[in-house]
Amino acid sequence: MKKVSESTIRRLSKYYRSLEYLIEKGIETVSSEQLAEMDSITSAQVRKDLSFFGTFGKRGLGYNTKMLMRQIGDILGLNRKWSVCIIGAGNIGRALVSYQEFKKQGFDVQLLFDSDPKKVGSKIGHLKVQHSDRLKEAVKEAGIEIGIIAVPAAAAQRVANELMEAGVSAILNFAPVSIKVPEGVMVKNENTAIEIEALSYFLTNDK
Amino acid sequence: MKKVSESTIRRLSKYYRSLEYLIEKGIETVSSEQLAEMDSITSAQVRKDLSFFGTFGKRGLGYNTKMLMRQIGDILGLNRKWSVCIIGAGNIGRALVSYQEFKKQGFDVQLLFDSDPKKVGSKIGHLKVQHSDRLKEAVKEAGIEIGIIAVPAAAAQRVANELMEAGVSAILNFAPVSIKVPEGVMVKNENTAIEIEALSYFLTNDK
Repeated sequence: MKKVSESTIRRLSKYYRSLEYLIEKGIETVSSEQLAEMDSITSAQVRKDLSFFGTFGKRGLGYNTKMLMRQIGDILGLNRKWSVCIIGAGNIGRALVSYQEFKKQGFDVQLLFDSDPKKVGSKIGHLKVQHSDRLKEAVKEAGIEIGIIAVPAAAAQRVANELMEAGVSAILNFAPVSIKVPEGVMVKNENTAIEIEALSYFLTNDK
Repeated sequence: MKKVSESTIRRLSKYYRSLEYLIEKGIETVSSEQLAEMDSITSAQVRKDLSFFGTFGKRGLGYNTKMLMRQIGDILGLNRKWSVCIIGAGNIGRALVSYQEFKKQGFDVQLLFDSDPKKVGSKIGHLKVQHSDRLKEAVKEAGIEIGIIAVPAAAAQRVANELMEAGVSAILNFAPVSIKVPEGVMVKNENTAIEIEALSYFLTNDK
């Protein structure tokens, strides 16, 4: 399989959401032009992305929304459940435990850890906070597939190492620091400050 | 000025963070190769990005870290303060009020709104929650430049409209829905579920 860029995957995620929206509205077919407009890109890009994955609309008819959503869901791995743990029961960790989009997309948050004894044992959403000391053992036991790091920068690499030692190979990192991982492990860095900087760039230069 | 792509701006934000890290460590010069390695891209891309903005390293010497950080900060609009408001005092809104990265980068959260009477008047971090009815008036008064939407999907467009009517032209949207804005207004959508989908894609296809 050819290498797919992160921006392609990002666009697939957007198409997926647009299709979900259209299906909710009872719309059965969609053209590449309509999908393009919903996501503010060109229709040529939409066609290119989808043809890459072997999906073709019918000229004059467009794509069947349900079929396309299922296909993109298969590509993105969304038509199944993923077991997820969160490390860090601060503001971000707490927000993520009850994040409806995760649940809807099949990301099932099963474990929540913190190293603060005052937090351990307390309940956040449907989860009881466990002590980080138990991380490796509990993550292995539960067969966690995706780890979300929501600890301070200084602790992020250590937590990542423990996750990897417990067999986790996909990490979403909210700590404002780069995490080093070997080949075969993927880290996505989520940094809201980077998103807002696109806005300050815009206000400074483009407006 | 030529049009700069969102992915270029995103890379500039990453260079900025890498430089900050190097400066904290007392490192005075950096090569494009080192910057490339820190951000997992090619050194040719680093040189291309920086030369686009008129910044050139010296062969064999590289870039002066402090100077480069200042230049990128100027480009991204980070060497000044921005006044920010947040609408929605739920989990996400609360996490953002006390998000240290915002403060550090000059994004000053000044107002927080919610429509829930039970939340209005309560204090979150350094801010008192105001009723959303006051949004337009208060945003105008404070001269807010960037609005962050952290309300449910159904309310997002209405809130965006009020922000725009109050003169805000840069919006960071956490609601899982597309917001329509006219030319001259920029919206960035922050969707953590999209980040995690790159991981499920990886686990499904690339591993």
